[in-house]
Amino acid sequence: MSEATSTAANHPPSDRTTVKRGADRAVYDREQIRSILDAGHLAHVGVSTDHGPIVLPMVYGRIGDTLYLHGSAANAMLRAGASTDICVTVTLVDGLVFARSAFHHSMNYRSVVVRGEAGRVTDPDEVVTALRQISDHVAENWDGRRPPTDKELRATMVLSMPLTEASAKVRAEGAIDDDADVGGPRWAGVVPLETRWAAPVANADVTDPCPDTIAELEGRAAW
Amino acid sequence: MSEATSTAANHPPSDRTTVKRGADRAVYDREQIRSILDAGHLAHVGVSTDHGPIVLPMVYGRIGDTLYLHGSAANAMLRAGASTDICVTVTLVDGLVFARSAFHHSMNYRSVVVRGEAGRVTDPDEVVTALRQISDHVAENWDGRRPPTDKELRATMVLSMPLTEASAKVRAEGAIDDDADVGGPRWAGVVPLETRWAAPVANADVTDPCPDTIAELEGRAAW
Repeated sequence: MSEATSTAANHPPSDRTTVKRGADRAVYDREQIRSILDAGHLAHVGVSTDHGPIVLPMVYGRIGDTLYLHGSAANAMLRAGASTDICVTVTLVDGLVFARSAFHHSMNYRSVVVRGEAGRVTDPDEVVTALRQISDHVAENWDGRRPPTDKELRATMVLSMPLTEASAKVRAEGAIDDDADVGGPRWAGVVPLETRWAAPVANADVTDPCPDTIAELEGRAAW
Repeated sequence: MSEATSTAANHPPSDRTTVKRGADRAVYDREQIRSILDAGHLAHVGVSTDHGPIVLPMVYGRIGDTLYLHGSAANAMLRAGASTDICVTVTLVDGLVFARSAFHHSMNYRSVVVRGEAGRVTDPDEVVTALRQISDHVAENWDGRRPPTDKELRATMVLSMPLTEASAKVRAEGAIDDDADVGGPRWAGVVPLETRWAAPVANADVTDPCPDTIAELEGRAAW
């Protein structure tokens, strides 16, 4: 499979989201960006601080072309990220690529990089809508949960970020060796990575059955 | 399973690697940091730029308490990362945690955050040793590859980073709901994530057999 490269009129790459290296793997199409974000479940979020950059893993949710992050209102990094530039990167590894020369080793993957200013969501309805979306991102379950209390909502910070400056990269092919090496000795190929959600494990004190939307994850690929 | 927290005398956390949130999940033990880095295969590397932070996925290698990254010598981000502070984060997701209240939803995971100044490796022997380690990180294969040419080595930049300012966080347990919710209605528990390397897929032009060290990945958990 080779890579698709396209540019969506509504999402022209900005100067800083134009992929510099491996531009042939760059995909600016908004549907692809959305589908990679929806297939993943973990983002790595970068913030510049006075003490250097920091990158932390976070869950996220997407509604339309808005990405939502959340965390404790006491989280220093989230506070630093509100009203400042952040970078949200989601990477789905699909396989290891072994070439005849290590120089051409690679990975098959789908990734999205979103840059831009994050803003704190203050509208109470949007806060709850965002938290529901983050909660339901992998499996719808919000409606079966105990609703959040005012105290919990006060302790939670939600950031939103537009997908305006977003770019995707996809690699989905075999090893690409130098012409001089192709057809010669040595093995080259891909070791695919398979992911799967396992059977839910209930807490010991639980008597209610597992909701269908969670139980149905079993056996499904995680991305 | 509950979390281990310990502090290794040789790696006292610096001010900026002291985990602020969820400090009970912080593990400073150097062996745990090493084992999480060795179990993973993808890092998210953050660099502060004049145009905001950028976070990109990269493979890596570890030798002792040195972490190695590599990329194209023309890679603007790597060049920016040499002799400046960067942040390298490795996160292994082990499961989704559904609590009775969405407020207590979480993930089971193992993560390492390394901060500090990256330096470009210039010693030719160390460059090759680092590239071999990065190549062999998941499966030893360097010795079966076509050796790098001088031109390839010139086109490659290797960064090293000490694991001095490294911290680990591990969550490996069921849902932790409020006392008032425990024992009440609703399901709570964990959906584990399973990963597995699949059978190697050779390039169409390959006639040599797959090396044992790569073939043996099949069926093995990826982390």
